[in-house]
Amino acid sequence: MDLRELIDQLPEGAVLTDPDLLAGYRHDWAKDPAAGTPAAVVRASSTADISATLRWANEHRVPVVPRGAGSGLSGGSTAVDDGIVLSTERMREISVDPVTRTAVVQPGLLNAEVKRAVAEYGLWYPPDPSSFEICSIGGNAATNAGGLCCVKYGVTTDYVLGMEVVLAEGTVVRLGGPRLKDSAGLSLTKMFVGSEGTLGVITELTLRLLPAQPAQSTVVASFSTLAAATEAILAVTGALRPAMLEFMDSVAINAVEDELRMGLDRRAAGLLVARSDAPGEHAAHEAKIMLDACRAAGATEAFHTADPEEGEAFTAARRFAIPAVEKIGPLLLEDVGVPLPRLGELVTGIAEIADRNEVTVSVIAHAGDGNTHPLIVYNPDDPDQTARAHRAFGEIMDLAIGMGGTITGEHGVGRLKKAWLPDQLGPEVMDLTRRVKDALDPHGILNPGAIL
Amino acid sequence: MDLRELIDQLPEGAVLTDPDLLAGYRHDWAKDPAAGTPAAVVRASSTADISATLRWANEHRVPVVPRGAGSGLSGGSTAVDDGIVLSTERMREISVDPVTRTAVVQPGLLNAEVKRAVAEYGLWYPPDPSSFEICSIGGNAATNAGGLCCVKYGVTTDYVLGMEVVLAEGTVVRLGGPRLKDSAGLSLTKMFVGSEGTLGVITELTLRLLPAQPAQSTVVASFSTLAAATEAILAVTGALRPAMLEFMDSVAINAVEDELRMGLDRRAAGLLVARSDAPGEHAAHEAKIMLDACRAAGATEAFHTADPEEGEAFTAARRFAIPAVEKIGPLLLEDVGVPLPRLGELVTGIAEIADRNEVTVSVIAHAGDGNTHPLIVYNPDDPDQTARAHRAFGEIMDLAIGMGGTITGEHGVGRLKKAWLPDQLGPEVMDLTRRVKDALDPHGILNPGAIL
Repeated sequence: MDLRELIDQLPEGAVLTDPDLLAGYRHDWAKDPAAGTPAAVVRASSTADISATLRWANEHRVPVVPRGAGSGLSGGSTAVDDGIVLSTERMREISVDPVTRTAVVQPGLLNAEVKRAVAEYGLWYPPDPSSFEICSIGGNAATNAGGLCCVKYGVTTDYVLGMEVVLAEGTVVRLGGPRLKDSAGLSLTKMFVGSEGTLGVITELTLRLLPAQPAQSTVVASFSTLAAATEAILAVTGALRPAMLEFMDSVAINAVEDELRMGLDRRAAGLLVARSDAPGEHAAHEAKIMLDACRAAGATEAFHTADPEEGEAFTAARRFAIPAVEKIGPLLLEDVGVPLPRLGELVTGIAEIADRNEVTVSVIAHAGDGNTHPLIVYNPDDPDQTARAHRAFGEIMDLAIGMGGTITGEHGVGRLKKAWLPDQLGPEVMDLTRRVKDALDPHGILNPGAIL
Repeated sequence: MDLRELIDQLPEGAVLTDPDLLAGYRHDWAKDPAAGTPAAVVRASSTADISATLRWANEHRVPVVPRGAGSGLSGGSTAVDDGIVLSTERMREISVDPVTRTAVVQPGLLNAEVKRAVAEYGLWYPPDPSSFEICSIGGNAATNAGGLCCVKYGVTTDYVLGMEVVLAEGTVVRLGGPRLKDSAGLSLTKMFVGSEGTLGVITELTLRLLPAQPAQSTVVASFSTLAAATEAILAVTGALRPAMLEFMDSVAINAVEDELRMGLDRRAAGLLVARSDAPGEHAAHEAKIMLDACRAAGATEAFHTADPEEGEAFTAARRFAIPAVEKIGPLLLEDVGVPLPRLGELVTGIAEIADRNEVTVSVIAHAGDGNTHPLIVYNPDDPDQTARAHRAFGEIMDLAIGMGGTITGEHGVGRLKKAWLPDQLGPEVMDLTRRVKDALDPHGILNPGAIL
């Protein structure tokens, strides 16, 4: 591989080859111990840089791992040996059009930066992964990321109206645009959302925005049993569309309380944080319906607050659950989802898997859409426990698949979960996936080892 | 072609070959004079019938034109000579799950039938093409159909969570499912939505539903100039998210008034019908904002009604515009869209095209999302006028493309608009489209001549 040829085509400083610097690009948050060492990192500043890199890589059959902020949890950006890590971290432009309520953004901008930029126009970009302060909008599109608001507002793909994407051979294409309705040709825009860098590299996104979210009313409820909590979840979603409906189990409640000392009920088996953003007085009306539903399901404590700061504190507590539980030990982070009526069954099954494998599993969930994040705590220095943790990780996916669920609701398949993908999708869909992949990336240079 | 081999694999009566019956399947509503005569019509009753038909057709290289209710406006279901028309009209099952708020529907059910079936559970399927009483849900998915509510609620793809689809060679695949969040593998579900039968035949859809729409408040406003009407459109969408924002020009107003005699202002240059479905008292609040915006833009008359029946009468009047204008003469029906700020410019440009070509063009629009339906009235018995009408039809698409718009917002490309598609998408996107098409349908049996 003649890196010189690539370096000469790119701006000075775009290509890193210093081993110390490369080390910082080997892993994403999946921290895959099998991560390779790349030959180089390209920090692209423009679509032209990405096009030049892919043209060169395609010609020389060099694998390219696209990378946003490196916050992925499924190993979608795990480096491969002798490949290129293609980072979009320097591509950070945004322009907002308040009339069409759209923003044109480059992939390296963080989700939170997009939210802040559009807020200046009184607008709102809904998708809100818990990692929104550190994850890139390009990575969000690549994984079809979700978050807390999805139960009412949908996921990333629902907000992507168009994109610029560079194909494997370096061709730049523009798809869709700032139009809510567009039936011209195949839905290629949507095909690239969630493709985890295996079909092309997204260099620009046209995002649909909403008016700024109205004031919110937040409901917090504690339950002494998981059964009562899951009953409340179904009662709430059956009565209205909450703007958020989050769940933490006992382990997570205590881990968060250890850190934040905000008075969460440490004896509770589960905590729900729900939100209404209905306009005007209707928020209080919805909050009352949710409170009543929680109490009818047997909540030991339930209250609501119309104070946005107090409400945000409980939401932040839920977002903080992953780092809080991580204080107990390193995590294998799950992302399984099931159709909502089976949520209780899933949570019970996960507890059985934890018992059987003698590992601690804390369950937190975007409960309103059936998407759970079982957090498997383990000690990587204990080979036996590590093996049991990985067995539990797989068994949880098997359980979800058996319930008609998904192995990943919002994190993507990456490298960590690809062994389970055929079990979920079946051989015909895997074959269809392969046909699309081969048509777009015949030499297999784009993120090899991810998804397929 | 040995039709016997096909007939033997299908239920009795599934295959029509009687020329009188075939005649009824040659056209959709595009009424393409170049429509071919099929060798047979297959009226499938099951996924197995569709699989058997495609397997046979793929083996013998027989073109297959999938067909829902035949209400398409772009010739996506125009029959081809010696091909098979594959009708889903007999596949009409539906099951509704109120807990996950999803419905599993077969493609032959009409949009209105889906709406009615889910309404029994207090649920709502939003997408609402004006043809909702006569168009099939399968056709809606195939064209990524829109409607009046899209300005707030999005288009068909936003409601398709999963599907069963039969590929060209007869393979049956299941994609997605009743989960709002699912990042497992490529977004193949979304790829088939809007593919107009060129990639596979949809045999089942899993649709996302919303709670029944709250009571609505409807605003009606008349304007003496098009400029004032388009100013009002931008003022309304800039202030809030209307649940509907529809436009009719003078020709349409008068054509509707001729038929319905409901007291529309015949001297108006344009009429807006807007709607709020905000909960509780907030609907009246939004209606007032919209009224004020219309008056500030110079409305000659503006009022609002909270009576749902009265509001629906004005909406029905807008929906009736196409058949009403059709009383003047046969129509070439356009479907161009532009980014919202350019809507006024588009409407002015269309008037110039009408003048230059000496044809009557009435403009109606889903104004809130920039999607217009210029209706070109012409006399097919007058070859010169027909030529001018077709020239105007093309020039309107050229105009929209030049404004960064689309040649079709919600009807699809079909056969009628495919000559313009490369001008909108460019050669690279056309090539990408071809690669996907060839990967999925290597022998090109699926709806040949549509889109590509």
